Amino acid sequence: MLIRYGVSTGFTSLGSVKNCMLASSAVFRRQQFLIRSLGGYSDHIDSRRMQDIRSMSGTTFEADAENVMREITSVLDPSKHKGQAGKIAVIGGCREYTGAPYFAAISALKIGADLSHVFCTKDAAPVIKSYSPELIVHPILEESYNISGLEDEERRCISSKILAEVDKWMERFDCLVVGPGLGRDPYLLECVSEIMKHARQSNVPIVIDGTSITYLMDIAQDGLFLVTNSIDLVSGYPLAVLTPNVNEYKRLVQKVLNCEVNDRDAPELLQSLAKQIGGVTILQKGKSDLISDGEIAKSVSIYGSPRRCGGQGDILSGSVAVFLSWARAKGKATTSQMNPTVLGCIAGSALLRKAASLAFKDKKRSTLTTDIIECLGRSLEDICPAC
Amino acid sequence: MLIRYGVSTGFTSLGSVKNCMLASSAVFRRQQFLIRSLGGYSDHIDSRRMQDIRSMSGTTFEADAENVMREITSVLDPSKHKGQAGKIAVIGGCREYTGAPYFAAISALKIGADLSHVFCTKDAAPVIKSYSPELIVHPILEESYNISGLEDEERRCISSKILAEVDKWMERFDCLVVGPGLGRDPYLLECVSEIMKHARQSNVPIVIDGTSITYLMDIAQDGLFLVTNSIDLVSGYPLAVLTPNVNEYKRLVQKVLNCEVNDRDAPELLQSLAKQIGGVTILQKGKSDLISDGEIAKSVSIYGSPRRCGGQGDILSGSVAVFLSWARAKGKATTSQMNPTVLGCIAGSALLRKAASLAFKDKKRSTLTTDIIECLGRSLEDICPAC
Repeated sequence: MLIRYGVSTGFTSLGSVKNCMLASSAVFRRQQFLIRSLGGYSDHIDSRRMQDIRSMSGTTFEADAENVMREITSVLDPSKHKGQAGKIAVIGGCREYTGAPYFAAISALKIGADLSHVFCTKDAAPVIKSYSPELIVHPILEESYNISGLEDEERRCISSKILAEVDKWMERFDCLVVGPGLGRDPYLLECVSEIMKHARQSNVPIVIDGTSITYLMDIAQDGLFLVTNSIDLVSGYPLAVLTPNVNEYKRLVQKVLNCEVNDRDAPELLQSLAKQIGGVTILQKGKSDLISDGEIAKSVSIYGSPRRCGGQGDILSGSVAVFLSWARAKGKATTSQMNPTVLGCIAGSALLRKAASLAFKDKKRSTLTTDIIECLGRSLEDICPAC
Repeated sequence: MLIRYGVSTGFTSLGSVKNCMLASSAVFRRQQFLIRSLGGYSDHIDSRRMQDIRSMSGTTFEADAENVMREITSVLDPSKHKGQAGKIAVIGGCREYTGAPYFAAISALKIGADLSHVFCTKDAAPVIKSYSPELIVHPILEESYNISGLEDEERRCISSKILAEVDKWMERFDCLVVGPGLGRDPYLLECVSEIMKHARQSNVPIVIDGTSITYLMDIAQDGLFLVTNSIDLVSGYPLAVLTPNVNEYKRLVQKVLNCEVNDRDAPELLQSLAKQIGGVTILQKGKSDLISDGEIAKSVSIYGSPRRCGGQGDILSGSVAVFLSWARAKGKATTSQMNPTVLGCIAGSALLRKAASLAFKDKKRSTLTTDIIECLGRSLEDICPAC
């Protein structure tokens, strides 16, 4: 069964909201809606019907993730050329962090992308390269410590050169992943925010790691840099995907909706948030992953693994980038007619969970992120055989 | 059955051509030739004969690749010394690219060469060394950014030192592979073009990566450097092999034959191109690989893999280098009497395809170039057992 907009798959929909004072009334409205769908009325509810409603509202927005994967996964065809199954670029990796961009970039290849690039700082590049000869690693970004003592004019000149270097490649990429291992150096983040603007101008989709979006918010708060509001970088850009974890999500909700998160109305709140940021897609990581583009909300609850080793978010962002690119390439050919960013998130979330589950079966407590990456191929093959 | 010149293997032959206006008449001539071979005449053809001809012209130039491999593969013999099974050097690897020269160099070893060297930039060397202790990596090349601010005289002096360093080794090598991960830095390319001239003077075969030949064309177009026409570097050198992909081939045809590529007359056009560049051998990569030295055209259509992950071209160039060296060592002992460069291309193409097919069977969509390299040995062993 393919997922479609509408009651049958239990989509949730809200009007424009300014803050989550509306959340409780949204719950009320949803209950009213579900009651009407069941042919009842709120003032004539018996306890059994109420149970049905609770059960329905708790399950029906679960995505049919396996069908989504089957529908969007790129068909392998000997007549295709290198690059046609996807060219991904990860913007991340600094003196401190080198594993994260590697995890994101190698995951993209293991799922089936043809080419995976990393744009990182000069210090990070040799290390990331040494993890795998399969990645194309560009040592071009700079951190503050490396340009200290320079005049503003010289710093701007270096920024321009970095941007020009990324721009040479930009239109070749099917998707950017911004943030894995980017750190929080202000000069670096400022430069990356400019790269994001250029990507947006070129209509290249961007998957933004949750940590990075909060760091960008921090530098915005410091008021020291070009970025006056990090949310503006993505606001109204339908090809942007944010992947916040629990805490990052809380901060986003506080900043954008000016309220606190509550578990009861999770899908409605997420949908409000995505809508408020102008229809970006948000993948809220948690026990179940929740996904919304402001129009619909979906959850992915496939059992994954109880291991919480660092780096799984990077697999997720790399995976979403590939699936998003494939879904976008299929365009209106997808029968679900869902937003390709939502389809990409559903497939990426489901694949990570399946791979994590497989890896855990084998490695138990000693499961590491590299073990999960090794299970990506088999997990995809189980659902969507290559031939 | 060994491949021989002549009708029985369906070789295609053309006179000297200046542009591909001749291509359609070439088809006509080939048909005439085939018709005569079958004892018929074009004006007395019945439909059955015409069918035979079509079938013949479509299939008979397929190389008997497995026999070629068996014929040229170096015999293992305990009395041989280190180096007798091949000494290969890869000229490539810069700050941006390190995976490609590693893939080419390690593939040469995995097929059976005794020694595999890499000549790369100083930045690339530690990374390439870290991929494998099996390679001998020379950190001697320089890129522009590293010599900026130097006077022309100093830059020339550095070039001379690099050349002298490579020259010390040159005559020990059985084949150079020029280009994997070379990038497009003008100073570096200029230096490498000088290395190619020296290799040619020493009669060392050169396999040139398609990307590099187009980059060399670009710097030639800029008119800034010593290389006035990159094609001159190889033109008339029968020990040169070019390995262009679809787009690189298009550029070569446009530049050399001043016309566009069409699929209908692919072997004739390739043969014209090879002839026009003075009898170099061209391996045109595609769904089927086409190979010509200007005298004959052969195809290798063994099924490989639908995966198009980056790096497979580097395996190919390393493999062709080894097989070419072996074929050349056998000299006239090969019963096929074909050009050793053509034999090397046939064997290299076939082995990559077999290895890619094996790797894909196991890894499906997650097949990476390193997985294919791991299958080179088994693929060769299946066709041509070591003992």
